[in-house]
Amino acid sequence: MGETVLVAGGSGYAGALAARILHRHPHFELAAVTSRSDVGVPLSDLYPHHRVPLVLEELDLDRHAQVDAAIVAYPHGAASPLVAQLRERGVRVIDLSADFRLRDRPTYDAWYGEHKAPELFGTGVYGLPERYRAQIAEADIVAGPGCFPTAALLGLAPLGGDGLVADVVIDAKTGVSGAGRAATQRTHFVSVDENVSPYGVAGHRHSPEIDQELRAYGIPVAATFVPHLVPLDQGELLSCYVTTTRRLSQQELLERYAAAYADEPFVELTDRPPGVRDVRETNLCRIHVHSEPRTGKVLVFAAIDNLWKGTSSQAVQSLNVMFGRPETEGLGPTASGLASRSQMPGASTGATR
Amino acid sequence: MGETVLVAGGSGYAGALAARILHRHPHFELAAVTSRSDVGVPLSDLYPHHRVPLVLEELDLDRHAQVDAAIVAYPHGAASPLVAQLRERGVRVIDLSADFRLRDRPTYDAWYGEHKAPELFGTGVYGLPERYRAQIAEADIVAGPGCFPTAALLGLAPLGGDGLVADVVIDAKTGVSGAGRAATQRTHFVSVDENVSPYGVAGHRHSPEIDQELRAYGIPVAATFVPHLVPLDQGELLSCYVTTTRRLSQQELLERYAAAYADEPFVELTDRPPGVRDVRETNLCRIHVHSEPRTGKVLVFAAIDNLWKGTSSQAVQSLNVMFGRPETEGLGPTASGLASRSQMPGASTGATR
Amino acid sequence: MGETVLVAGGSGYAGALAARILHRHPHFELAAVTSRSDVGVPLSDLYPHHRVPLVLEELDLDRHAQVDAAIVAYPHGAASPLVAQLRERGVRVIDLSADFRLRDRPTYDAWYGEHKAPELFGTGVYGLPERYRAQIAEADIVAGPGCFPTAALLGLAPLGGDGLVADVVIDAKTGVSGAGRAATQRTHFVSVDENVSPYGVAGHRHSPEIDQELRAYGIPVAATFVPHLVPLDQGELLSCYVTTTRRLSQQELLERYAAAYADEPFVELTDRPPGVRDVRETNLCRIHVHSEPRTGKVLVFAAIDNLWKGTSSQAVQSLNVMFGRPETEGLGPTASGLASRSQMPGASTGATR
Amino acid sequence: MGETVLVAGGSGYAGALAARILHRHPHFELAAVTSRSDVGVPLSDLYPHHRVPLVLEELDLDRHAQVDAAIVAYPHGAASPLVAQLRERGVRVIDLSADFRLRDRPTYDAWYGEHKAPELFGTGVYGLPERYRAQIAEADIVAGPGCFPTAALLGLAPLGGDGLVADVVIDAKTGVSGAGRAATQRTHFVSVDENVSPYGVAGHRHSPEIDQELRAYGIPVAATFVPHLVPLDQGELLSCYVTTTRRLSQQELLERYAAAYADEPFVELTDRPPGVRDVRETNLCRIHVHSEPRTGKVLVFAAIDNLWKGTSSQAVQSLNVMFGRPETEGLGPTASGLASRSQMPGASTGATR
Repeated sequence: MGETVLVAGGSGYAGALAARILHRHPHFELAAVTSRSDVGVPLSDLYPHHRVPLVLEELDLDRHAQVDAAIVAYPHGAASPLVAQLRERGVRVIDLSADFRLRDRPTYDAWYGEHKAPELFGTGVYGLPERYRAQIAEADIVAGPGCFPTAALLGLAPLGGDGLVADVVIDAKTGVSGAGRAATQRTHFVSVDENVSPYGVAGHRHSPEIDQELRAYGIPVAATFVPHLVPLDQGELLSCYVTTTRRLSQQELLERYAAAYADEPFVELTDRPPGVRDVRETNLCRIHVHSEPRTGKVLVFAAIDNLWKGTSSQAVQSLNVMFGRPETEGLGPTASGLASRSQMPGASTGATR
Repeated sequence: MGETVLVAGGSGYAGALAARILHRHPHFELAAVTSRSDVGVPLSDLYPHHRVPLVLEELDLDRHAQVDAAIVAYPHGAASPLVAQLRERGVRVIDLSADFRLRDRPTYDAWYGEHKAPELFGTGVYGLPERYRAQIAEADIVAGPGCFPTAALLGLAPLGGDGLVADVVIDAKTGVSGAGRAATQRTHFVSVDENVSPYGVAGHRHSPEIDQELRAYGIPVAATFVPHLVPLDQGELLSCYVTTTRRLSQQELLERYAAAYADEPFVELTDRPPGVRDVRETNLCRIHVHSEPRTGKVLVFAAIDNLWKGTSSQAVQSLNVMFGRPETEGLGPTASGLASRSQMPGASTGATR
Repeated sequence: MGETVLVAGGSGYAGALAARILHRHPHFELAAVTSRSDVGVPLSDLYPHHRVPLVLEELDLDRHAQVDAAIVAYPHGAASPLVAQLRERGVRVIDLSADFRLRDRPTYDAWYGEHKAPELFGTGVYGLPERYRAQIAEADIVAGPGCFPTAALLGLAPLGGDGLVADVVIDAKTGVSGAGRAATQRTHFVSVDENVSPYGVAGHRHSPEIDQELRAYGIPVAATFVPHLVPLDQGELLSCYVTTTRRLSQQELLERYAAAYADEPFVELTDRPPGVRDVRETNLCRIHVHSEPRTGKVLVFAAIDNLWKGTSSQAVQSLNVMFGRPETEGLGPTASGLASRSQMPGASTGATR
Repeated sequence: MGETVLVAGGSGYAGALAARILHRHPHFELAAVTSRSDVGVPLSDLYPHHRVPLVLEELDLDRHAQVDAAIVAYPHGAASPLVAQLRERGVRVIDLSADFRLRDRPTYDAWYGEHKAPELFGTGVYGLPERYRAQIAEADIVAGPGCFPTAALLGLAPLGGDGLVADVVIDAKTGVSGAGRAATQRTHFVSVDENVSPYGVAGHRHSPEIDQELRAYGIPVAATFVPHLVPLDQGELLSCYVTTTRRLSQQELLERYAAAYADEPFVELTDRPPGVRDVRETNLCRIHVHSEPRTGKVLVFAAIDNLWKGTSSQAVQSLNVMFGRPETEGLGPTASGLASRSQMPGASTGATR
């Protein structure tokens, strides 16, 4: 058996899924799953389909911090104090909240309120393995990216550098699980069913996170970002409309993406527009690009499962990196084999209706 | 009783709904409903919920052309020959196909194939009453707009003129009824359920229609337009990202829209982002606008029911105009009363998640 | 203008829909809509699609009891005290809760807790117009039936009398709106989506109500009743499996139902199995019957919209009866015209898959 | 590497899923996937989410029959001739059609038309491993059970013998994938969405199959069976209402089921009503039983994934048995660990709403 891992906050969607993936992981050992709201409840009562035969426990650091690593699935603001305690005991942490994602303190405070472990602010490594693989391997705190930033960054990264990108509009469509397990009018079935609507129009807290990391990729823009709620449970599609400073041919575009992702096991380039169904319950990001002749714009469509690659399976991907395991271990299908034959020049994207 | 109306092509969604609205219309008399594929079938077998007690008939011009008006719900290309025949007999026509929407012949032929009634090409009035009310009143052929153009034009029109608009991106989300009644892999429940995907990425035939009419509104751009299929039956949301040549304040934006739509019974301005559920089974277009401080962009969200305002009820709205009836007759709730209190300056759009 | 009507409890689905139907009713005048939780909120903020331009008010009996009638849409237990107060002021009441449905006090107390207006217990008329039309016309308190009992009773009534029915199994499938507007884990989109599950297996409080009224129809059985939650918002299908004491031929069965419902405007007999979509947003109950040769059982399928015929539009139907209005006034399409041609002997029900 | 397996008919849901499960199976080798309609098409174009990197081939028996076993996923009637050819070449076959399920020839012909390989009629072993494990191990032809019979038999089997069962009503709710990949009005999104409806009311071809196998379990009844289509893609819930010849206490009932399924890895007893979501994409059947005090009836609820346990993963379960592999190999989570703690006497089933 390999390193032991704690999941703290297992009654929510993200923590419960992390527990499931770890429970079936061939290397790591799921030591315990804690909960603040459902102590004593079998995880299989809340999530029968995960089939994790553990009972949710009350957090007891003396006992639970005897692990090699922890995945913390607490709400923003509540996570950082626990992360601090775990760090004091030498536990390496992957935090799924936003508490360690941002590098600008005022920006964090503006969106999430005053940071609760300021001494650690900014010490996390942004947990997107496709970019920060080397740093994650050494990290004590990994900040799991937001689901929207994950898809946005993977979709846009190959356009970074040499002043290519002038403007970005990101129109996101997300399933309801992204809003979490809390029962609200917004997540009520009747509110979502047969509906599509934008939200966070006046500003969404994933915006500064997207901008910060786009900048790291050499795309220093203020991206317009609007998420929309659609009637499905898991899945997220980002449609990115990019204005470039010079025209890219379809061929050039394809080559750029193929080069960027040639060795990435979890990025799948495809010659047809992706659907979120294509990546459901996988750690894959499926991407399609199109150079629009009429306008010169570059269109990028990126699909992920918001709970998997957008949150929990990406955390395990980082865990694999942190402990020197094969990056794909325990994470299901990879993109290999598909990437090679996808989006050959000349492939059509089809005009219909 | 008022003028008699024929619906030609009543087995599809658009024709059947037009028949329903006319059947309950206080003025017009639904004379007959014809079908090419389901002759002899009671309309209530195909569409029980419409409760129109008529049997689909085989088209017999000698008999069926004894009407004052006809709504033609044939596929693109098949419609124009019938329209020509009806015109020869003096019937005023509202054609729901694309055959009379475009004013540039090569563009039509490129997207739809060679026009089948070239002598009539370009003689239709574009059936958007909010713009072409006066012309519709006199028209012999009204070309019912496409569903996407309807929402796009109503959403963007108030930005027209004085060189204000520099660039437009339109990201549309549509329910499945927009693809019509034909059973295909694309409309199969299993293909759509739990899925979101873009289509027509390389070009959609509503693009030239949108561009043509935007130009008429004083917005001479090549708009980027990408529709997405979402898992619901009726409803369409367009998210428009507009780059302007000068910044508009939120106040200025609101005033512009309020002025444009002060007297429009079917355009509803709202101070919160619209959902398609808000306009389901109505002739309303619900619009929300936002001036984005970070980028200077104008964001416009417009929701319609693609089968109602996007197609069939809008056709009846035009019919009302053509025959001097109150424009709202037989069309259900109007926007009056709501528009007045909506989007007062200072109203917030809410930032969440 | 006609009688004035108060809706008390307008923030929930049932009250809000009653307000909408009354707002557009050609005779009654909607005087006010009150709420215990959302005072001051425009009804159009909670339910944009209803387009009722009223603001929810705090209940003030001095003012609000100056009406001819009230529809009370309070939870079980909370309704009866308000009904008592309204009665003291002479207001005729339709109560949508269960507080006046049952005629056996211990049964009520066992399922709903101690009755809060015991002096009025049992004084309500059961508000199923198809059975209690005459009593409703004279009633001061009408108890709106539960949604499941409504469909069960209309589906089974024609089998009543002469000791025909020996056993009944009712398997119900309901949309989520039946669970009300409260946001709970059970109504969370992610719990319902892609799911079907039974609930109330050990006993559902609509059971005693069904049994009580079946008995009134001459069907003195303890019916097995199990509801199932299915992923849709509005609609309810009841599949009833009836063991009879003697065999009924299909012809005899059809004649029995045709006779029972010949003059009912809101019961629609059909020669094909009904879907809930067929009756969405109507006051109709659509029924299909089948005599099963292999087993001798009678199968009855009854579909209603749980919020309309199952609750709010049925309340307005009773209101029409109470005030001598045409029973169908303000309630949309009726079954007339369809019933006559439905289920002629020899019509097939189709065997597929 | 282990035995080689052909999947014949890989463009449909069942064959494609069988290919996916075999492609990832630790022992068997997926040799090829053939198709009659999509030769040359990559399986990943039709089913991206399966991620099987094979191209659909035209069937060439000289080449394709060089395998140890074949899973045949052809339509009823079309399957038996291919099974005959494969048998001639010594290939052991699991046939997913109905061609080898029934043991009475006139019954087969009445429901499916004249059998196309009459010399083999009745030579198949019914592929329900929970009952016919020993015979499957030796079989040359295994007839994969229908999805409804699978759930019905697993749900009712423990009630078999000693003349206990007097009558059975089975009310089934199924997702749309059960109707197959063919695009029809019935599988059109708009027909299914927001709908629930019964079908096959006058008789469904799974009825004789259910009756035949219930008899084998010692339940010689003509079961009433009515399936209903619900708006979800995968999943099937059967609600069984059983009249017994003597009353069973809840305790006796639980003990009976616990004894029957103590060693079954894919049958999961649960103390709460199952939802189809609980078993999605698994080979599990989840069962809940209830003895109804008011009526003496036994209620059984059984949930499966119609494409997995109902079809393709159950076929691989049989394949494991045929070739002496661990029965659970390559089939994901099992019921072990949960069964032991489920449905202890005294557990409540909850009464709500």
